[in-house]
Amino acid sequence: MSTESMPRQLWRDVQVFDGLAQLGETMTVLVAEGRIAGLWPAREFDEAHARGAVEAGRGGVMTPGLVDCHTHLVYAGNRAGEFEQRLEGVSYEEIARAGGGILSSVRATRSASEDELIAASLPRLDALLADGVTTVEIKSGYGLTVADELKMLRVARRLGELRPVRVITTLLGAHALPPEYAGRADDYVSLVCDEMIPAAVAEGLADAVDVFCEGIGFSPAQCERIYRAAKVHGLAIKAHVEQLSNLGGSALAARYGALSADHIEYLDEAGVRAMAEAGTVAVLLPGAFQVLRETQLPPIALLRQYGVPMAVASDANPGTSPICQPTLMAHLACTLFRLTPREALAGMTANGARALGLSELGRIAVDAPADLCVWDIQQPAELAYAVQAGRLRQRVFNGAITHAC
Amino acid sequence: MSTESMPRQLWRDVQVFDGLAQLGETMTVLVAEGRIAGLWPAREFDEAHARGAVEAGRGGVMTPGLVDCHTHLVYAGNRAGEFEQRLEGVSYEEIARAGGGILSSVRATRSASEDELIAASLPRLDALLADGVTTVEIKSGYGLTVADELKMLRVARRLGELRPVRVITTLLGAHALPPEYAGRADDYVSLVCDEMIPAAVAEGLADAVDVFCEGIGFSPAQCERIYRAAKVHGLAIKAHVEQLSNLGGSALAARYGALSADHIEYLDEAGVRAMAEAGTVAVLLPGAFQVLRETQLPPIALLRQYGVPMAVASDANPGTSPICQPTLMAHLACTLFRLTPREALAGMTANGARALGLSELGRIAVDAPADLCVWDIQQPAELAYAVQAGRLRQRVFNGAITHAC
Ligand SMILES: [Zn+2]
Ligand SMILES: [Zn+2]
Repeated sequence: MSTESMPRQLWRDVQVFDGLAQLGETMTVLVAEGRIAGLWPAREFDEAHARGAVEAGRGGVMTPGLVDCHTHLVYAGNRAGEFEQRLEGVSYEEIARAGGGILSSVRATRSASEDELIAASLPRLDALLADGVTTVEIKSGYGLTVADELKMLRVARRLGELRPVRVITTLLGAHALPPEYAGRADDYVSLVCDEMIPAAVAEGLADAVDVFCEGIGFSPAQCERIYRAAKVHGLAIKAHVEQLSNLGGSALAARYGALSADHIEYLDEAGVRAMAEAGTVAVLLPGAFQVLRETQLPPIALLRQYGVPMAVASDANPGTSPICQPTLMAHLACTLFRLTPREALAGMTANGARALGLSELGRIAVDAPADLCVWDIQQPAELAYAVQAGRLRQRVFNGAITHAC
Repeated sequence: MSTESMPRQLWRDVQVFDGLAQLGETMTVLVAEGRIAGLWPAREFDEAHARGAVEAGRGGVMTPGLVDCHTHLVYAGNRAGEFEQRLEGVSYEEIARAGGGILSSVRATRSASEDELIAASLPRLDALLADGVTTVEIKSGYGLTVADELKMLRVARRLGELRPVRVITTLLGAHALPPEYAGRADDYVSLVCDEMIPAAVAEGLADAVDVFCEGIGFSPAQCERIYRAAKVHGLAIKAHVEQLSNLGGSALAARYGALSADHIEYLDEAGVRAMAEAGTVAVLLPGAFQVLRETQLPPIALLRQYGVPMAVASDANPGTSPICQPTLMAHLACTLFRLTPREALAGMTANGARALGLSELGRIAVDAPADLCVWDIQQPAELAYAVQAGRLRQRVFNGAITHAC
């Protein structure tokens, strides 16, 4: 039903984490027409506002719906066999020679139909939704041809129609060099710039463009060509940078006004400064850090010092972070990166939305869209502290309760 | 209803992980009277066995019900505030001076009634069940008086009556020195040996006895007194050993025939040898390792070399592992400890059961109790590879399907 026909809904006695911090008082929250219509300290609430409203809940912690701002959720196949082989002692090289690694996901994704990709991706999306996600970014990047990249983006858009969730799509043509372009990376970058980006724009399939700027990915110069093409076509910019080494990719992305620089374990102070000046969000991905047993920590103290907003995301992908559980990411951001629970939760709400250029999402504020979670806990910090299913009492999408345990 | 009145149930075309390894063929499984009545390669199945049986499922991966063999699930309060303070820069010392740490859980647990402890613990137990657990060990250890330790054990027993799960109880009186015994640890150990253990035995409340053998816990000599008392009263022995340093606690526990030695990051070869000779199971606890940012890895290669069975458990507790998700532990055992998926799954099934002295559980074999999970995946390794809710299709406890997504 349309949000206009829905009754006004009232939540009483909730502890509110508003996307940036916990409010100091127990609150009453009114939702109407898909938006937050009112927000009062409970003891100041005027019962006149309650007239005609449904009592939707009482107690618990209310947060914005979670924003998972960096995922590779759409792919076919999985790499459990490879995960097992590696732990049984097979080397990365042997696995690559046997056709493993990212190219095995590319092969499986290329040969899958849109419907097959939907079927493979829906359980992953449902796992995110069951953990409180109301907005998710989904990247392409396992197609690596014009047709297959567009197919992935089309699937991402369709996922957003099949489930009550906002989907933001990102064209990540420059994820890896496809085998048919071996030794011709610049030609492949031309394909991305001259064909993929225009085709995605023509079909309205991409909200942003992303790159993998790394020794084993694409060079800063190649990424810059892609940023220019994105600019020409009016697309936002995001970047996988400084994950395995420092190539200055974050500063370069910031110069092009990137919404976010993601991973950034090897980011230096100059890069942090550039991001601060450009308003580029730092997206932290503790899942991949954990799976790869990375030891280089992202420069959290510098990011705090320069006031760079920090987001936290799942990086859900078949290789380095096969994890579809954002609250686990909040926990890992605290234990591994030493974020405070407040920072981790802001990273999955207000700052996650900011990393997608969606500044009105990820907040609990009057007039903001009513994407909300109500959790069966006493204080927001518990979400990052404990890892425990069953705490999500209600998930509210655009004013409609879509999940109640 | 009693298992005798239940119809025979048939699962077809399942990939079976039998508790130790994946069976080579697609299987058909028949359950009758709460036990596994038959197990055949699907292509050899004689349909005569299907007569009168309910078709309970088809496809997916079947594992034994998960066995979480080391938890501190029963406690009051939580330590999210302390978790937050620590990350905000408050030192351990300041937190301890302000009454934080384990003693805050002791205070909260002592002042909680049995019903309050049930209410606090049920959501944690339900989270374990939702992730496939059919057998859980629950320790006391936050009471530290005779009455409060018995209260915790009584709550643990009651949890097993409230939910379809087997609960094994362990008296962990020697978890920490209660403040009223400061400077009189030997006197407290006398209380454990002379009063707690006999009282727990008299009420039938404890299946085993456990100790925290560590510089900040109890000395090997003190633990030995407790093992002797356990032996006298016919209780099994378990031990928290070699977590922060090597005191030879595992070898000592093994000399007393301990079922398991748990944590064991600092275990040396002599300890491994002693465990192998005694048949003592190594219980690995990657949750605490992760939360404490431990870097000393348990001696996995030595455990393999000496053939010591490895179990994996959640260690669910409010301080160092506030995590109620066994499949996450399988994942972390692989990524952090480099267990293979097969080892991690055996650690949460057959070897978890063995760590509790329950050798007929944790197995899929003819005549074994029908505690089973059916997962929406293609191969068992996916359980350890991906962290994703919603994959548990059916949970079967004692032959009854208690959960179906
Ligand atoms: Zn990524
Ligand atoms: Zn423990």
